[in-house]
Amino acid sequence: MTEQHAIGMDIGGTRARVGLVRSDGVILCEQKLPTLPDPRAMISQLVEAVKGCSDAGGVPLEHLAGIGCSVAGTVHLQSQTIGKSPNLPRWEGFSLGEALGRAIRDLLPADIPLVVDNDANAAAWGVAHFEAPELRHLLYVTISTGIGGGIVIERALYHGAEGNAAEVGHTILQPAGPVCQCGKRGCWEALSSGTAIAREGRERLKMEDITTERVFELAQSGDETAQAILDEAAFYIGVGLANLTEIFDSGAIFLGGGVMHNWEMLSKQALEAYRGQSRWQVPIWVTALGDEVGLLGAAALVFERATPD
Amino acid sequence: MTEQHAIGMDIGGTRARVGLVRSDGVILCEQKLPTLPDPRAMISQLVEAVKGCSDAGGVPLEHLAGIGCSVAGTVHLQSQTIGKSPNLPRWEGFSLGEALGRAIRDLLPADIPLVVDNDANAAAWGVAHFEAPELRHLLYVTISTGIGGGIVIERALYHGAEGNAAEVGHTILQPAGPVCQCGKRGCWEALSSGTAIAREGRERLKMEDITTERVFELAQSGDETAQAILDEAAFYIGVGLANLTEIFDSGAIFLGGGVMHNWEMLSKQALEAYRGQSRWQVPIWVTALGDEVGLLGAAALVFERATPD
Repeated sequence: MTEQHAIGMDIGGTRARVGLVRSDGVILCEQKLPTLPDPRAMISQLVEAVKGCSDAGGVPLEHLAGIGCSVAGTVHLQSQTIGKSPNLPRWEGFSLGEALGRAIRDLLPADIPLVVDNDANAAAWGVAHFEAPELRHLLYVTISTGIGGGIVIERALYHGAEGNAAEVGHTILQPAGPVCQCGKRGCWEALSSGTAIAREGRERLKMEDITTERVFELAQSGDETAQAILDEAAFYIGVGLANLTEIFDSGAIFLGGGVMHNWEMLSKQALEAYRGQSRWQVPIWVTALGDEVGLLGAAALVFERATPD
Repeated sequence: MTEQHAIGMDIGGTRARVGLVRSDGVILCEQKLPTLPDPRAMISQLVEAVKGCSDAGGVPLEHLAGIGCSVAGTVHLQSQTIGKSPNLPRWEGFSLGEALGRAIRDLLPADIPLVVDNDANAAAWGVAHFEAPELRHLLYVTISTGIGGGIVIERALYHGAEGNAAEVGHTILQPAGPVCQCGKRGCWEALSSGTAIAREGRERLKMEDITTERVFELAQSGDETAQAILDEAAFYIGVGLANLTEIFDSGAIFLGGGVMHNWEMLSKQALEAYRGQSRWQVPIWVTALGDEVGLLGAAALVFERATPD
C-alpha cells in the first residue's frame, strides 16, 4: 500500500494537539495549543496549525488523505455536533465538523474526508488500527482526570443509538460510594480516576492543594495513607475491568490516560483484583501509543473507516 | 416473503421445549420434556420431539428451514460445543451441534441449517427478529434463577472473542455484597435474581424453605421485611440497567425471565433507581414474547442470520 498522510487533531479539556501523521503511525510534525473556551475562536487557530504541520512536514494540503478530529465530549455522528462535554461546556451543541469544514474547505479538495469523534472512541480506534490490527474486538479504557472508554466490535467503533456509548467511567461499582462529578454516587470515575485519587488525598492526608501526582510520590516514599488510597483506586480498576470482561469478553483491554504514567504503582493490586473478580481473563495492556494515542486515533479515523455503513 | 417454518429448541436447566415455529412467530406445536443430566441420553428424545412437532403441525421435516437450539450455557460458536453451564454440569464440553446433527441428519436434507447458541443470546435474537426489527442495537436481560443477557449490535448477536460475552449478571455492583453462585461477591445476580430474593427471604424472614414466589406473596399481603427484600432487589435492577445504559446506549433494553411474572411489584422501585443512576435513559420494556422468548429465539436463529461473516 502506498504511503498516506492525514492530519490528526486531539482537542482536550485544556490542551489541543494537531499533527501530521504518516500511515505507518509516525508523527512527522506536531503542534500543541491551548483549548479555548469558545470553540468559534479556536477554529482559525486549528486551521493555522493544520497549515503549519503540512508545511513543516513537507506534505502539501492537497495531498492529505483527510483530517480526523478527536474531542473531549460526546459527538453526534451524523451532524458531527458535540453533545455532552463536562470539560468544554461552551462547546456543547457546537457543530465542530461543519465549522471546521467551512474554515478549511477552500484550502483542500472538496471531497477530502473530515471525521470527528469522541476522544476515547478515537483513541480506541487508534489502538485498533496501529497497535492491534489482528483483533476483531477490543476495549480501550482511559484513566485520567476522568475515566472513559471506547468499544471496537467487528473492527468498527460502537457508538450506541445516540452516540453516548462506552461511558464506562459512569458505571456504578459502589452505590454508597463517593459522589462523582456527574452527580451520581460510586461511579468507577469517582473511585479510580486521577480526580478520585486527589480527592482522597485532600480528605485523608489533610492537604488542601494536593495533586494526584503528589499522592503517588507520597506512597512511593512510604506514606501508608497514600498507599491505602492507591490500593483502593487500584482495587476498583480491577473491578471495573472485570465487569467489562464479563460483558464483552473482548480480545484485549488496552489502558491509556495520565494515570498510566504511574501504572507500575497500581498494576499489582489492580490485576490481582481483576483476576479475583472476573471468571475469565483477557489480556490487559497499557497502550504502546502513550500520550499520542488521541492524536494517532484521530488520524486513524481517516486511514481506516471506523463505522459500518 | 413466503411462509417458512423452523424447529426451535430451548434447553433449560430443568426443562426443555421443542416447537414448530412459523416465520410470523406463531408456534404451531410445542412439546415440553425434562432436561436430562446426561446430554447423550437426551438427544434421541429431542429428535422424537422434532418428529412429533413436524407431524402435529403438518409441516414435513424436509420442508423445514432449519433447526435452532438455545441452551443454558455458553456455546463455542465454531464447534457448537457447550462451555460453562452451572445448571447443566454434565453438558459442559458436549458437542451439541455435532451430536444433534448426527442424530437428525438422516431425517433431513444435508444442507439444512442447524444453529446452537446460548439461551439469553437466542432470546435476544428472538426479540430483535420478532419484536424489534426496527432497532439496530438492543440488549436483552433475563432475570430468573440467574441473570443473563444478550447483546445485539448492528443487527447481529455479539458473542465476544471466545463466546462468553453478555454475562451481565456477573458484573459486580456491590463488592462487599452477598456471595454469588459463581463464587464472587456482589454480582448483579446475587443482588436481584430470583435466587437472591429467595436467599434473603430465608435469612431475613427465617423461613427455611421459602421460595421466590412466596416472598412476592408475603410482600403483597403487607409483610414489611418481604417488601424491603423486593425493594433492594429492585434497586439493583435499576443500577444494573443504568450501567448497561452508560456502556451501550442501546436502542432499548428488553427484560424477560421468571421474575418478570411479578414485574409490577418491582417496576416502580427499579425504574426510579434506573432514572436516578443513569445520565440518560433508554426505553425499558418487558418482552412481549413472554415465556416463549427462548423457543422463538431459537427459531429466529434460523429465520435470520445472527452472526456477521
